[in-house]
Amino acid sequence: MAVRTIDVRERVMARNDEIAAKVRTRVRAAGVTAFNLVSSPGSGKTLLLERTLAHFAGRRRIALVAGDVQTQNDADRLARHTDRLVHAVVTGGACHLDARQVAAALEQIDLDDTDLLVIENVGNLVCPASWDLGEDAKIVLFSVTEGEDKPLKYPKMFQQAAHVVLTKVDLLPFVPFCKDRAIASALQVNPGLRVHEVSAVTGEGIGEWCRFLESHMRVAVTS
Amino acid sequence: MAVRTIDVRERVMARNDEIAAKVRTRVRAAGVTAFNLVSSPGSGKTLLLERTLAHFAGRRRIALVAGDVQTQNDADRLARHTDRLVHAVVTGGACHLDARQVAAALEQIDLDDTDLLVIENVGNLVCPASWDLGEDAKIVLFSVTEGEDKPLKYPKMFQQAAHVVLTKVDLLPFVPFCKDRAIASALQVNPGLRVHEVSAVTGEGIGEWCRFLESHMRVAVTS
Repeated sequence: MAVRTIDVRERVMARNDEIAAKVRTRVRAAGVTAFNLVSSPGSGKTLLLERTLAHFAGRRRIALVAGDVQTQNDADRLARHTDRLVHAVVTGGACHLDARQVAAALEQIDLDDTDLLVIENVGNLVCPASWDLGEDAKIVLFSVTEGEDKPLKYPKMFQQAAHVVLTKVDLLPFVPFCKDRAIASALQVNPGLRVHEVSAVTGEGIGEWCRFLESHMRVAVTS
Repeated sequence: MAVRTIDVRERVMARNDEIAAKVRTRVRAAGVTAFNLVSSPGSGKTLLLERTLAHFAGRRRIALVAGDVQTQNDADRLARHTDRLVHAVVTGGACHLDARQVAAALEQIDLDDTDLLVIENVGNLVCPASWDLGEDAKIVLFSVTEGEDKPLKYPKMFQQAAHVVLTKVDLLPFVPFCKDRAIASALQVNPGLRVHEVSAVTGEGIGEWCRFLESHMRVAVTS
């Protein structure tokens, strides 16, 4: 029975990958970069996005797809910072977003009027690593209140990601967390990771983070 | 295909529940209480258990089964605080422990020489809610560095649990976290939850937590 389970699972994953490839083709054809934000629950994805939206308000158009197991709390929080529609996906118990859900959200998004697409995944450091959503890159958030060895214990997510964002760095003086050791753990499982550091509370690193995002946005048209 | 997936999944879950029932019968017959500790990655399960083991060192016999996706880091940390064998389960990518793994660990545990069985699950606030391990109760940890609305966003885990432990309360002055609102969220999804508060760093609440655990241990034999 175990073999049969794997068989079905592989076909489900293959179907997801097909849809993800179509999403990727479509988003890229529109000249838009798509990021898939992943992390443990409570690592600060939503607050970082709130700060990001505030930074770009009125200047840049970020399309958002926010996934939660239950509630639209994250989407509601994000909607307060943008005049654009935030696409809430309630997975109803499922532990990750899938490409079909992103493809459905894209039906409502005008990519020609979008500078960047950000998908906020369900808070889960395991399962979303296996589900391609058609993004250009996964960005994994890692809070300084978590253990320094998270990348070693959940390696797939850090291997899949192109960027790691160390969040809540304002709490460093108050927690037993060695930043250097944490970054070394992340680079041990994926030497190609680019490391960012932010505090969404104090604003530390937010400017640099937003410059990084802007470097992946459409070139602004100067009128 | 979706229907077939659910069918297979249901059979896998039913098989898990059968094994869990056997584990439960066996552990209860030995007069041992089993707790299943669940939480997001980085909520402080391992550190709380380290403090717990130190508290009971030489006096009480706690059997431990520690699950991780990769590495035996948690089990190694726990082993430093006890002269008893800590059973490490590496799930190899799977997002939760299952009853079969606990049953296998039990083969190595002398329940007659055990006052309490604690299973430290994989850090994941979604999937472990669905997998009965044969425990008497799930205990969900919830760190004050996470969002206050975690119980609303991940309701199944809080509904399945009998206890919630608010961890890292020493960080309350430094984080935008309203403890009352967080507890209200937890009680909203499960009014029967018993709430504990601890800081494994300062020791706050550890005495009370350990008294709670002790109330579920075998009655100590006075010689």
